[in-house]
Amino acid sequence: MSVQLRSEIKSNNTLTLSLAQVSIPEPAEDEIVIRVEAAPINPSDIGLLFGPAHMNASQLTGSTQQPVVTAPVNEDSMASVSSRIDQSMVAGNEGAGVVVAAGSSENAQALLGKVVAAAGGGMYSQYRALTVIQCMVMPDNVTPAQAASSFVNPLTALAMTETMRKEGHTALVHTAAASNLGQMLNKVCLADGIQLVNIVRSAQQVEILRDIGAQYIVNSSSDNFHIDLVSALLATGATLAFDAIGGGALANDILAAMESAANQSASDFSRYGSTIHKQVYMYGGLDKNTSTLNRNYGMAWGIGGWLLTAFLQKSDTSKINELQNRVAQEILTTFESKYNNEISLSQAIHPETILQYGKQTTGNKYLINPNKI
Amino acid sequence: MSVQLRSEIKSNNTLTLSLAQVSIPEPAEDEIVIRVEAAPINPSDIGLLFGPAHMNASQLTGSTQQPVVTAPVNEDSMASVSSRIDQSMVAGNEGAGVVVAAGSSENAQALLGKVVAAAGGGMYSQYRALTVIQCMVMPDNVTPAQAASSFVNPLTALAMTETMRKEGHTALVHTAAASNLGQMLNKVCLADGIQLVNIVRSAQQVEILRDIGAQYIVNSSSDNFHIDLVSALLATGATLAFDAIGGGALANDILAAMESAANQSASDFSRYGSTIHKQVYMYGGLDKNTSTLNRNYGMAWGIGGWLLTAFLQKSDTSKINELQNRVAQEILTTFESKYNNEISLSQAIHPETILQYGKQTTGNKYLINPNKI
Repeated sequence: MSVQLRSEIKSNNTLTLSLAQVSIPEPAEDEIVIRVEAAPINPSDIGLLFGPAHMNASQLTGSTQQPVVTAPVNEDSMASVSSRIDQSMVAGNEGAGVVVAAGSSENAQALLGKVVAAAGGGMYSQYRALTVIQCMVMPDNVTPAQAASSFVNPLTALAMTETMRKEGHTALVHTAAASNLGQMLNKVCLADGIQLVNIVRSAQQVEILRDIGAQYIVNSSSDNFHIDLVSALLATGATLAFDAIGGGALANDILAAMESAANQSASDFSRYGSTIHKQVYMYGGLDKNTSTLNRNYGMAWGIGGWLLTAFLQKSDTSKINELQNRVAQEILTTFESKYNNEISLSQAIHPETILQYGKQTTGNKYLINPNKI
Repeated sequence: MSVQLRSEIKSNNTLTLSLAQVSIPEPAEDEIVIRVEAAPINPSDIGLLFGPAHMNASQLTGSTQQPVVTAPVNEDSMASVSSRIDQSMVAGNEGAGVVVAAGSSENAQALLGKVVAAAGGGMYSQYRALTVIQCMVMPDNVTPAQAASSFVNPLTALAMTETMRKEGHTALVHTAAASNLGQMLNKVCLADGIQLVNIVRSAQQVEILRDIGAQYIVNSSSDNFHIDLVSALLATGATLAFDAIGGGALANDILAAMESAANQSASDFSRYGSTIHKQVYMYGGLDKNTSTLNRNYGMAWGIGGWLLTAFLQKSDTSKINELQNRVAQEILTTFESKYNNEISLSQAIHPETILQYGKQTTGNKYLINPNKI
């Protein structure tokens, strides 16, 4: 049997996390089956796992063999999840494992015994069938734990630089910049000659980035934050930011600093502010609070959601292959990920662990090993 | 001599509005000079006139002949206007008048005695020189007062529908929808078969729009606002809004309602919300308060500033000519404007009048006649 993590929001305003027992899948002709040994908990997984439920009010029920966690959902939030109500959903965007069975096709057979990574969804499962085309095959010296985060963070970092070029910007700003993703983005930008302004929230995070060679690091908890940020923007000319935080005034403050930088380089007054387009894309929502905008940065600005999936849907296959090949080649260097904790599926649905990984703070990254006892 | 309204923000944190006496301009070969008889006070003029000054603390100084109004500017706001400090600036984006002098070119001579409209800036002047190409020549039965608003509102209404088409949307939402601009947009949308959701703030404004044939009108002061808005969005499929308000939660609420409408039509759950891009462009800031976003509408959303000037700069000449020709032909019908008050230049810089037109409320529209005594 194969154990699988499930998330369900029931019409009685309750979220349920549980472990389902399903048959080990049989591979079709062009499929393989992997024993999943490593699947990260990304911010993008948390949305599906928890929905809008109040996880600090979660309760452990069921048996030791069949644990179940329940948590309440506000009536107000039910409409936002109407299309998933009463559906037991698998979770885990990406992960890696060893190929233990293969369909009859030559391409599938060639993968037997290999370590492969995939972003097929439902990776918080002991066994998972995948088509050959979904798999990124790793070099022989790479372990599943090392390959677990081959899709979301690496492709996000690369897609940010691609978006920058496509939309006519020449440098980047990134928030929560000491994260695994932020460190990757620094390595990509250093390799590709892109100037990157890193915004972090502590002196400790400044050090993390300093150590990997980041040039522009601004600490938002410093009294000089605004001045430091304007200086970095003047030096780099960055007019595009990717923001993982979402809530509060950070996106607003970045736009205001971009406008200050633009006005310091401009010679003429424009009643509508600078004519240079300033953009913040929110790709995460680490801060769930309301975002506030004072709109004190002219008219040439934008804020919006940004999603890797949407970027990939707009990209052609050759571009996606190019990016994936780069990830596989550089998985132990540029795209190396670090984790603080490896947990089992049972641990993943324990209220105490949930509160830990639910924090989503920088340097607090969890890896699920579905085959850990 | 020609009297001209001037706005200056001085380095001592003071805004000054005054009337300057300048020579009547001489037309160059391809120029004409108009006696300006009508120039509207648009929201887009207020920014230049008042800057970030506190107009409710304004004081009248100077003489009856040479009145001067001063108002304080917060130290915090000075950086946002750094490039205009200590510069005496002319004001008035658009207006209309009678051609009283012309350069030697045939095109210029042909305009003598005609009523023309222009958006040359500095229209709060008794006389204004313009190149022939800047002028929109009016049919003989049109007065300067009728032609005063031939650029900003008419071209904005048309540019909104052009933006809708260009960015792949099929219907529109508009806020402060009973304004002159809002009424124009209704007439344009009715003529062009575009479905338009009008958001207003009072039952009286509902009636104004009902009278001109608007089909979808939603009152944001009603208890049923959200439900009514979702219904209108479901009926029209509008995923693009133009918002004149800016502050508060209105833009957020529009995005949330668009997301509700999208989810009601969607069959599958997506953890990132609907994949349909939902956009709000803020083209004004009638509410100066902070905008708040709860970001509870997935990842496919955007909010940004929108400016007619930027739209025109990205458009080719043939498109602009097409739009301008339509305005001139329909200035007494589709693009008719209404004003509540015609004031002189002296009245325009009187503290009491300033507080009146500074309100920028719907149905409280002012026209400056620089040649009114």
